[in-house]
Amino acid sequence: MKPGRLEIAPRSGIAFTLAAGQALTVWDPEGEQVSDMIAYASDDPGEYLSNGRTFDYEETIRLTTGHRLWSNRSRIMFEIEEDRVGTHDFLLTPCSEATFRHFYPDKPVHRGCFGNLAEALAPFGVNPDAIPVAFNIFMNVPIDPLTGRLSVLAPRSRAGDFIRLRAKIDCIVGLTACAAYASNGGSFKPIHYAVD
Amino acid sequence: MKPGRLEIAPRSGIAFTLAAGQALTVWDPEGEQVSDMIAYASDDPGEYLSNGRTFDYEETIRLTTGHRLWSNRSRIMFEIEEDRVGTHDFLLTPCSEATFRHFYPDKPVHRGCFGNLAEALAPFGVNPDAIPVAFNIFMNVPIDPLTGRLSVLAPRSRAGDFIRLRAKIDCIVGLTACAAYASNGGSFKPIHYAVD
Repeated sequence: MKPGRLEIAPRSGIAFTLAAGQALTVWDPEGEQVSDMIAYASDDPGEYLSNGRTFDYEETIRLTTGHRLWSNRSRIMFEIEEDRVGTHDFLLTPCSEATFRHFYPDKPVHRGCFGNLAEALAPFGVNPDAIPVAFNIFMNVPIDPLTGRLSVLAPRSRAGDFIRLRAKIDCIVGLTACAAYASNGGSFKPIHYAVD
Repeated sequence: MKPGRLEIAPRSGIAFTLAAGQALTVWDPEGEQVSDMIAYASDDPGEYLSNGRTFDYEETIRLTTGHRLWSNRSRIMFEIEEDRVGTHDFLLTPCSEATFRHFYPDKPVHRGCFGNLAEALAPFGVNPDAIPVAFNIFMNVPIDPLTGRLSVLAPRSRAGDFIRLRAKIDCIVGLTACAAYASNGGSFKPIHYAVD
């Protein structure tokens, strides 16, 4: 691993704080891996990253360099400063025991990104019910324009690709190395990140 | 108004309970009007209607007859039994003071569907921060398949069109006659509904 980077082990998740003005960079070190990201305002976790408010204000579901990610209280939480992939998802919720049972009935149940985020965020006072739709970094979810049907395909990210987000408010961030089969092409890999 | 129907006045909202097995029918009495709908489990408002979980399990963003609407805890809250329009939105948040200032800087600020839902749901113990993305009945939000860009167009609903949803769990429902300009073609109209 390159100096200055931290690792999120495969199928796990972490939480940490970020001060306004700091940058969070998230790398896909091996390629075709997804990282679910959620965030809350440090001074009140009732304020959280909202897919709906982001779609309202950015007027697109395809978020990349120059777009902002908004909170449920209509504040800008992050700006995407640099994005080497350009394909992320902000429609789907973190995988969970229930989604494992639904989508992979023949495979072992895993607590998923949802369980990993719930455990990592508990010390910050975040209740599991307050885990919203995640900004699913590198996740590739095309929509059929005629029917609206969603597909979950292998990510387009290649080894070393990254996205850098600049925090606009002090926040608590939850971040995972995704635990589901479909979102990363069937393999489980780490995620690297840095705060500076 | 036809017998057995109740009216939601233009730019207002209400809340009521629905028992498992009951049907909620929502009519657009004049045509081209939107009704924002949110819902919570009666026994614990920490469980709420979730766009992300619905997209997960229904595998589409275009919800119509036969589709189910899911909670954040992966339970089915509603099934769409009949839908005479077929075009609804589940991406955008209820209009609010902040969205009025952003999108209509030259027009009077209104508290919007968000403020109307917050007031209507307060007696049920629902905090404004717990108002999620709404199921925006009759709202017409096409997505550009190449860019992901969203547009808010006049609804396709004509006078008398309706949708009927069957509750699968006991729930608290918030429902509005939309207060924004873009979502209903610039005019404010009532919504009719019935529970049976």
